Amino acid sequence: MTNDSLKKFINLKRETKGMINIDPLQAGGILTDEARQTLVEWGDGFSVCDFCQGKLSEIKTPPIFDFVHNVLPEFIGADAICLTNGAREGKFMIMYSIAKQGDFIIIDKNSHYTTYVAAERTGLKIKEIENSGYPEFKIDVNKYEDAIKEIKKENGNIALLLLTWPDGNYGNLPDVKKLAKISGKYKIPLLLNTAYAIGRMPVKMNELGVDFVIASGHKSMASSGPIGFIGMKKEWENILMKKSQYFPKKEIEALGCTARGTSLMTLMASFPKVVERVNQWPEQVKKAQWFSEEMEKLGIKQLGEKPHQHDLMFFESDKLFEISQKDKRGRYFLYQKLKKRNIWGIKPGLTKHFKLSTFAATKEKLQKVINAFAEILSSYPQQTL
Amino acid sequence: MTNDSLKKFINLKRETKGMINIDPLQAGGILTDEARQTLVEWGDGFSVCDFCQGKLSEIKTPPIFDFVHNVLPEFIGADAICLTNGAREGKFMIMYSIAKQGDFIIIDKNSHYTTYVAAERTGLKIKEIENSGYPEFKIDVNKYEDAIKEIKKENGNIALLLLTWPDGNYGNLPDVKKLAKISGKYKIPLLLNTAYAIGRMPVKMNELGVDFVIASGHKSMASSGPIGFIGMKKEWENILMKKSQYFPKKEIEALGCTARGTSLMTLMASFPKVVERVNQWPEQVKKAQWFSEEMEKLGIKQLGEKPHQHDLMFFESDKLFEISQKDKRGRYFLYQKLKKRNIWGIKPGLTKHFKLSTFAATKEKLQKVINAFAEILSSYPQQTL
Repeated sequence: MTNDSLKKFINLKRETKGMINIDPLQAGGILTDEARQTLVEWGDGFSVCDFCQGKLSEIKTPPIFDFVHNVLPEFIGADAICLTNGAREGKFMIMYSIAKQGDFIIIDKNSHYTTYVAAERTGLKIKEIENSGYPEFKIDVNKYEDAIKEIKKENGNIALLLLTWPDGNYGNLPDVKKLAKISGKYKIPLLLNTAYAIGRMPVKMNELGVDFVIASGHKSMASSGPIGFIGMKKEWENILMKKSQYFPKKEIEALGCTARGTSLMTLMASFPKVVERVNQWPEQVKKAQWFSEEMEKLGIKQLGEKPHQHDLMFFESDKLFEISQKDKRGRYFLYQKLKKRNIWGIKPGLTKHFKLSTFAATKEKLQKVINAFAEILSSYPQQTL
Repeated sequence: MTNDSLKKFINLKRETKGMINIDPLQAGGILTDEARQTLVEWGDGFSVCDFCQGKLSEIKTPPIFDFVHNVLPEFIGADAICLTNGAREGKFMIMYSIAKQGDFIIIDKNSHYTTYVAAERTGLKIKEIENSGYPEFKIDVNKYEDAIKEIKKENGNIALLLLTWPDGNYGNLPDVKKLAKISGKYKIPLLLNTAYAIGRMPVKMNELGVDFVIASGHKSMASSGPIGFIGMKKEWENILMKKSQYFPKKEIEALGCTARGTSLMTLMASFPKVVERVNQWPEQVKKAQWFSEEMEKLGIKQLGEKPHQHDLMFFESDKLFEISQKDKRGRYFLYQKLKKRNIWGIKPGLTKHFKLSTFAATKEKLQKVINAFAEILSSYPQQTL
């Protein structure tokens, strides 16, 4: 292992200058200036542990205690907050601590892949609620009640209901309040996956009536990853945050501590701006709806709910697909043509179906995206298609 | 939630200028300049996912694939590497994927608290190997064989042996090669907790003969947390990195991905310097032994193995304890007197027993630490004690 052979790992640059970022995965995680400053200040491993007395969430300097015990719960209407390394880790933590192997979990068909994997890791049987299919792919939450009855008839034990709000493909927002009533009626806890909601749009879990929300700092709260949290009703606190029989200060499910420094500090540093942007959510929705209309004028169809209520959107284009069949770059032509215009976020190789987010880009920049699609489409004369 | 009330979360400073850091938790995690640059460049949430095709460890740009599949395995003599969010998550991942509830795990009494908590979370019965007690607290690995026989006699199933190397209190390095032979004889896998070893001292798991090592980036590899990894023998790869039945690219135990950006990039950026410092390990040991001797000249006794083979050391001082009984600041006097001299890392409130690390500080700075202890001791005349 020579020094020269290791040089490839240093000075790696990420070309973000002038980038128009429409990647749904990244649009809500771009750091604020405050968070970027914090990164440098608190970047060292275990930096926040300078004043720790054995429990991360009780550190008073920096003001982690206040953030975790007062500010975050108020922000999302939770009785208690538990920090995690991300939304997926939060899902596993909940499933693993409240369910037994062989129990059922009922999830929406639009769930993120990590919902399936977390349930699989826990050893749960998965019952899916189908969506309405093309073109809206909506989740009718009444179907959860049918599923509950069906499983109960066969004496299955249902540990948890899970709804993805919004889902990460279509950006649909199913009727969570109605599902919360079903959850209450059958006394089965309800977990709302808000990885694409908390930090972008207003979410108050007490008003929605859910037992748990899981949030992602690096996905939607302008944080450096990995970090997230669980918001919960009081009744779950003693289960999820149960202390070790060996070390009475340490929480079993968190293995003592999850986030251990930098990522939590960036979550805190970005938080004031995140509160601001959540207040501006109606403008985000308007921007998304305008973008959708402009794309449709080009013949690129928006799938999912309409009029759309979220910045994450799924599009379909037969024309772009046809071009990919003829272009010498094949299915990579769209990615490359967008990249040339510094537009990032549509996955390489996709042409017929792709998702994007209008969250981070200004209307001006989004106009450039629309112009780009218009140019790309018009540069292939109809007869060649 | 007013903007003013949230100002406390921004512009938080950490006073590290001129700091002499002897905190065992932090000494190996201080970022290199290269890692600090990388933080700013790759700090955004999901930044490394620009070019991801569904699996983090296969990303070619930046060179994560090469790092995870070639460079790291060679560095520690592993057949395969699995990234984690830290050492504790690695321990849980191993226990949870190879053991069943009610199985036994045999661990050394000097284990880190997260070893207990991870076993508890998995539902394992813990059998402890006692240390030799005061003053060396050594682990005699032959006792593992006695424990195995004892549990087998009662028809218990032993899923795993675990040894902490070195432990986080005394910095002792038990005879791991001998334990590996016992592990082989009884065909019980051996997990070596090297959170304080990999990144500081040379570790080749194939030469040691262990099944697993777990490492911590933020503890010992100059990385921003949370990040770590598991090194394993080939035979465990299909168990630990088993793929989801629902998403064939996604690993169940990792919930798809663990580290998702910044922390991994800092691990990579610091790696060339980490390789260099591991090569200089004999000088680190010499420095630790010199420090221990100087402290003993002041009447502060080093507990744990002697001559000491690691930078992490445990000290005992009856004198400092006696002072704390008289001083108006009570047991916080030592912390405050050291802090005044910009020496950080001995926990507030400790006087009789405390641990520290000589890893990050130069010999010159450590001389200042010794001088500080000498001054503190001499400033309290004998007759007042």
